[in-house]
Amino acid sequence: MMNKVISSTQNSYIKELVFLKEKSRARKKSGLFLIEGAREIALALKGGYEIDTILFYPELFSEDHLKELIGDFTNCIEVSKDVYQKLAHRDTTEGVLAVAKSKLHALESVILKTKKPLILVAEAPEKPGNIGAILRTADAANVDLVIIANPKSDLYNPNIIRSSVGCVFTNQIAMGSTEEIINYLNEKQIHIYCAALQASVNYHTQDYTQPTALVVGTEATGLSQEWLDAATQNIIIPMQGEIDSMNLSVAAGILIFEAKRQRNFL
Amino acid sequence: MMNKVISSTQNSYIKELVFLKEKSRARKKSGLFLIEGAREIALALKGGYEIDTILFYPELFSEDHLKELIGDFTNCIEVSKDVYQKLAHRDTTEGVLAVAKSKLHALESVILKTKKPLILVAEAPEKPGNIGAILRTADAANVDLVIIANPKSDLYNPNIIRSSVGCVFTNQIAMGSTEEIINYLNEKQIHIYCAALQASVNYHTQDYTQPTALVVGTEATGLSQEWLDAATQNIIIPMQGEIDSMNLSVAAGILIFEAKRQRNFL
Repeated sequence: MMNKVISSTQNSYIKELVFLKEKSRARKKSGLFLIEGAREIALALKGGYEIDTILFYPELFSEDHLKELIGDFTNCIEVSKDVYQKLAHRDTTEGVLAVAKSKLHALESVILKTKKPLILVAEAPEKPGNIGAILRTADAANVDLVIIANPKSDLYNPNIIRSSVGCVFTNQIAMGSTEEIINYLNEKQIHIYCAALQASVNYHTQDYTQPTALVVGTEATGLSQEWLDAATQNIIIPMQGEIDSMNLSVAAGILIFEAKRQRNFL
Repeated sequence: MMNKVISSTQNSYIKELVFLKEKSRARKKSGLFLIEGAREIALALKGGYEIDTILFYPELFSEDHLKELIGDFTNCIEVSKDVYQKLAHRDTTEGVLAVAKSKLHALESVILKTKKPLILVAEAPEKPGNIGAILRTADAANVDLVIIANPKSDLYNPNIIRSSVGCVFTNQIAMGSTEEIINYLNEKQIHIYCAALQASVNYHTQDYTQPTALVVGTEATGLSQEWLDAATQNIIIPMQGEIDSMNLSVAAGILIFEAKRQRNFL
């Protein structure tokens, strides 16, 4: 079978894809986003994402590789080097891109497979690098659910996909307003532990073996009052340095792995 | 007293400073580096760094502020907006820069104030963002010493200073070859725990209340064989996800705070 070929960066479809790469708005409107790299595409497929189109630059990524990656999928477009480079986000070019369909990440669609879930909630995280690192930790700890409260951006920003090394596809992720999420957690009788900069209770004194949501805010301003008021307990990571300032993803990692330790890594 | 004024970006001293900002080589040769921002300069002063020259753009940073920051220090140069922007690294401009003298970070100069120190060793860390986040965690945990083994860069890269939010100045930091550091730790009878991707012992099963060095390698390749061979015990952070991949600074944070927990945060 012959693939369709696009070699002009001025092609209107390619221009649309550039928008998908660069604009959250374009991703939201179309419900589509770009995935770069074979590993990331494979993880997205494993995570149940539907692929709309594959674009590949044959000199970097052969049709054999393509077959290995996506089997009999037919909507493949061969692109020129110029076109590939226009769409690719990274310096190291892999030669393969997918246009995939977004998920909705609705709270109502969440499936909790255990009666004592471990959930991580991040309120309004800003830096793609932090979000990516948090998703890597959540994957490594096999947490049951990651929730982004009051998201500042969509999840399909190329920097988030990249810094999560594909863990944006392997985690169960929900999004919603802080109010919706607090209602959801209360309904499910999940204990809420909010990392607060001024809390008086040390994080390691609490029991995280019950249904648990660990909640972290931004580095600059911490959590909103809504969360602090809704907490089963506000907790603090004791700091003893010159500067009370920990990286958000590091703080989340410390809390998640304290919970894992208490749960004997089960 | 009148300050010296420089308003041309072509001034030869300003050109030298641009080299200091951009080139590790220039910093090494001169033993000088740039610090941007009042908070960072204050932390450097607190950390015992010697200031060579202050440059300020008066519309953003007044002489009163300057006096508050550095008291009677006299070697101050007033610069134009253009010159300031040429030297500044950040988008948000603070209006004040210092030229400071590097420290040597020699192992021989290390002072351990306790008989049971907690030390973090990072071998050949690459990303300034990771180094910065590690230094923030080390500051927050008040570890006794951070050692960079086989450093890939100097510490005074503007991205490291920035991402550490000045913790590069608040931590005691030493650098050396892996061999030198292993000798040092053995001499001091400090237990060595190496984070290894294939180790069979879980990190939380070990006793970190004795003199302890926690050692982490790069995300890509982990620790060198030298470290693994020198370890009192190789340890693993158990991972249960689709991707066995944690951010380096997150992994370091989990290990450091497990040690802190065992030490009752003393």
